Amino acid sequence: MITPLSARDTLDIPGLERLIEHILAGGVHGIFLLGTTGEGPSLSYRLRRELIERACDFIHGRVPVLVGITDTAAVESFAIARCAAENGAKALVLAAPHYFPMNQAELLAYLRRIVPDLPLPVVLYNMPSHTKTAFEVETVREAMNIPRIIGLKDSSGDMGYFHSLIQLHDHRPDFSFSIGPEQLLAEAILLGGCGGVCGGANFRPRLYVDLFEAATAGDLKRVPELHRQVMEFATGLYSIGGPNFGVINGLKCALKHFGICEDFTAEPFAQLNDAQRREVHACLSILGIARN
Amino acid sequence: MITPLSARDTLDIPGLERLIEHILAGGVHGIFLLGTTGEGPSLSYRLRRELIERACDFIHGRVPVLVGITDTAAVESFAIARCAAENGAKALVLAAPHYFPMNQAELLAYLRRIVPDLPLPVVLYNMPSHTKTAFEVETVREAMNIPRIIGLKDSSGDMGYFHSLIQLHDHRPDFSFSIGPEQLLAEAILLGGCGGVCGGANFRPRLYVDLFEAATAGDLKRVPELHRQVMEFATGLYSIGGPNFGVINGLKCALKHFGICEDFTAEPFAQLNDAQRREVHACLSILGIARN
Amino acid sequence: MITPLSARDTLDIPGLERLIEHILAGGVHGIFLLGTTGEGPSLSYRLRRELIERACDFIHGRVPVLVGITDTAAVESFAIARCAAENGAKALVLAAPHYFPMNQAELLAYLRRIVPDLPLPVVLYNMPSHTKTAFEVETVREAMNIPRIIGLKDSSGDMGYFHSLIQLHDHRPDFSFSIGPEQLLAEAILLGGCGGVCGGANFRPRLYVDLFEAATAGDLKRVPELHRQVMEFATGLYSIGGPNFGVINGLKCALKHFGICEDFTAEPFAQLNDAQRREVHACLSILGIARN
Amino acid sequence: MITPLSARDTLDIPGLERLIEHILAGGVHGIFLLGTTGEGPSLSYRLRRELIERACDFIHGRVPVLVGITDTAAVESFAIARCAAENGAKALVLAAPHYFPMNQAELLAYLRRIVPDLPLPVVLYNMPSHTKTAFEVETVREAMNIPRIIGLKDSSGDMGYFHSLIQLHDHRPDFSFSIGPEQLLAEAILLGGCGGVCGGANFRPRLYVDLFEAATAGDLKRVPELHRQVMEFATGLYSIGGPNFGVINGLKCALKHFGICEDFTAEPFAQLNDAQRREVHACLSILGIARN
Repeated sequence: MITPLSARDTLDIPGLERLIEHILAGGVHGIFLLGTTGEGPSLSYRLRRELIERACDFIHGRVPVLVGITDTAAVESFAIARCAAENGAKALVLAAPHYFPMNQAELLAYLRRIVPDLPLPVVLYNMPSHTKTAFEVETVREAMNIPRIIGLKDSSGDMGYFHSLIQLHDHRPDFSFSIGPEQLLAEAILLGGCGGVCGGANFRPRLYVDLFEAATAGDLKRVPELHRQVMEFATGLYSIGGPNFGVINGLKCALKHFGICEDFTAEPFAQLNDAQRREVHACLSILGIARN
Repeated sequence: MITPLSARDTLDIPGLERLIEHILAGGVHGIFLLGTTGEGPSLSYRLRRELIERACDFIHGRVPVLVGITDTAAVESFAIARCAAENGAKALVLAAPHYFPMNQAELLAYLRRIVPDLPLPVVLYNMPSHTKTAFEVETVREAMNIPRIIGLKDSSGDMGYFHSLIQLHDHRPDFSFSIGPEQLLAEAILLGGCGGVCGGANFRPRLYVDLFEAATAGDLKRVPELHRQVMEFATGLYSIGGPNFGVINGLKCALKHFGICEDFTAEPFAQLNDAQRREVHACLSILGIARN
Repeated sequence: MITPLSARDTLDIPGLERLIEHILAGGVHGIFLLGTTGEGPSLSYRLRRELIERACDFIHGRVPVLVGITDTAAVESFAIARCAAENGAKALVLAAPHYFPMNQAELLAYLRRIVPDLPLPVVLYNMPSHTKTAFEVETVREAMNIPRIIGLKDSSGDMGYFHSLIQLHDHRPDFSFSIGPEQLLAEAILLGGCGGVCGGANFRPRLYVDLFEAATAGDLKRVPELHRQVMEFATGLYSIGGPNFGVINGLKCALKHFGICEDFTAEPFAQLNDAQRREVHACLSILGIARN
Repeated sequence: MITPLSARDTLDIPGLERLIEHILAGGVHGIFLLGTTGEGPSLSYRLRRELIERACDFIHGRVPVLVGITDTAAVESFAIARCAAENGAKALVLAAPHYFPMNQAELLAYLRRIVPDLPLPVVLYNMPSHTKTAFEVETVREAMNIPRIIGLKDSSGDMGYFHSLIQLHDHRPDFSFSIGPEQLLAEAILLGGCGGVCGGANFRPRLYVDLFEAATAGDLKRVPELHRQVMEFATGLYSIGGPNFGVINGLKCALKHFGICEDFTAEPFAQLNDAQRREVHACLSILGIARN
């Protein structure tokens, strides 16, 4: 879930409530707070805690809540984790530390030291484009033996790697492997993945739920068409504002256009300018996504 | 300066005081808190503030203090900057944001938005191995026009880049270009750089001050020999505990061996084990660095 | 197709004939000579020409032959291309130049200068792990307007990129997008790709043809099981002898074990040692692939 | 040395002779044929042999000749090496294989297999930006025990690495470490390097020889000024025509402007256009390098 903001350190609370209702109306199976699309690392700790409290309160147990605790400082990861547990979240999401480079032995030692002390089950988050450090297959195999680790979300975009992870299911069938990039949702589900964490579901939750369900059902009539819609949406919307900042800015701008929430993004992102906002609106028109 | 710790969130206060006296006795011209070697990003915000307060108090104006404010959250960078200003620091040090990848236009826009609101002069910190994003030469040329930016510390290890920065001096001779890796201190000073920020100066401040002074004086009798000593020290000590964590763990272990401060390092680093500590001691013996 | 060798510059001619019969018996739809798996860049020009002549003669038009002409020297690429045309090949395969780094404008200019003078239709070959330079989506869109270019084989492993290529089909439905890594064959075909160029088909051609046909038919009963077999085969066999050289060494060793051809590989590869050969045999046993 | 060409596969023979006289008149201590600046990998094997024969004939033993034999095919490397030996070259220059990625153990095994069979002494050539594979310090330490290897030219641009190589001198003082990027010549010589292989010396041989000699003599009055001239020349000239192709195109264009040789460059390079040629001429004017 994106984090609706009205200023650098101000949560857009009415927007947050409308956004949660919009997403839940689309049929999603869970909500992930403070991930990359949620701008987690860009937010003050005070605002992260406020978001957890408010979102958990609005969601009120209708779907499970997962909370990102990735941070360069372990002390702060633990503080966010405690806040998540106290507010009823079901699991924590933890990427590799992202300032110091590290090798796989160091990464595994880090997990062994940190994870057992966390107050909730943990989903690993493979995001090497942002953290520099990937969870390699052998590291995941070892990490599956660390108590509390229950799954992995892969945002590497490397489907060969993802298929190698799926092979680890033989060792522990209860472990969940889900996919990050929505462009890869169809194939991930068709070939053994458990689910997807799709940024686009902030705006069009029903499309992604439909694709997930069609793929789970092996419905090859519907999957290619829904996949095509996801590709058109992502290709069209996410490049406005540049390749790095376009996804979040594009989603927030579309949500504002539909009256759901403010489109402020925290630094290091820049706000879209007026021309870019018009591009977003034009893109939605072309895709036939009309304002209600 | 390394940050002396006795536990994950506990400052080693007597160690901090001894360390500062040790460093100042070696003749350094300034102290940089909460940089990479200072494990800044690994520390809780509470501890970062405590360190700034205590260190500024102990240093008591004998040399200028610089404070690292690099963070993924701009709100937290501002908070640390205010703390630094209130405690008498002379400048802030700011690397590129280090979670989201960004291009040069985005990086420059970020600087333009953030830097003018900071309460002290700012030194940019080029550290692409950790932040993923470098300050390219053209970006630095533009950034030199942003108020408050007074210098750049380059830890890229790319001397061709550093020499290109030196060429920018023609535009603004008061701007300061200093070098990060101590292995490059000699040539940086010989060929136009202003100074160095040397991790090894935590343990052997006099060696690095001597090399700086010999290079500044153009004393080619002394520079190669002092440079050789720096190379031997760095090659010997910093590889123990692995290429990523070795520098800080090695320095802290050597400082503990000399009775200066505790050698705890915060996550994601692992503590050295006993065998690695013995390697550090053996390395110091070989280098002829005897315990007092 | 791998290139059967009995020494650094000696083609294993009886092995070549047996290999071609073995592959064709498996039902493949075409044969690609002098690609990466064919060790094209490692072979002398004399041997490359000998291989083209002999292979085209043995294949004798039963399936189309494609010939890799990737080279650092354009003059040599043209020479190989002429040899391919004279021997009845149907198309040429061209990766980005692989010594000098280049940007997308330079790559496109290179294609515009080289391709129109080639004597046969051209398939682009995206192989950034080896060439350093990728064909980005916008470059492919432009390249689709260059005469003679009829398709692209993507070995990047990046399925998001591949799906973006598939979107270009709207502009030119006759253009063919095929996939390199066999681990991605299933999803590439299910979601709009035209085919695959699978190294494993040297040894088990029927498995890959079956997977291609099941995916083309949308047979979701068979696809996951055949995909699982491909993953087990690739994961088991290709890692022996190291991640870089394992694929080709593993395939050649398995082919030798089955009496098809010699297993010599040209430099920079090293030959498998006896222990590694036993590992290959053990891997085949575990996978239930018995020697005839 | 650049390779003067009048067309893709045609050596500019009068230009070659004038260029050699120009370079030798500048006082250089040796000539390196078929390196990166010599476009070695872009040239046909026929032309590479022609160049070796003609250049060795024109040079006629006045300085030692080194010949680059880097190639993806070992058979072709040997052929070029034989040609070099037959024409009186003194040494061969060998970079890592540059199509297949390889690890350090594979690289070392490759050297052990290839080098002992070469007919002349060998200088290793570290060029990871083009070959993808670097010679790491431990690999160089091992390679120093392989017969025939007498030195290493480092074009990585990483001076920390270069200083670590210099430390290996203790093991074998006769081994020669020279530097590639001319921007790093001054410091490489001041701090223990043996020499430089400077592309700019094609055009301004005297400048580079002067800098080498001033640095060797420890003349800190002259070194910074000569280094500044090198930086201005390189910064000004090499960026015209883009960062990848600019060095060679810029040098050739300047040489043509002075009537020394043709400025054709082989693919994958594009020829400079008229506007770019005027930029080169303007750059030379600004630098005060007048046409004779």
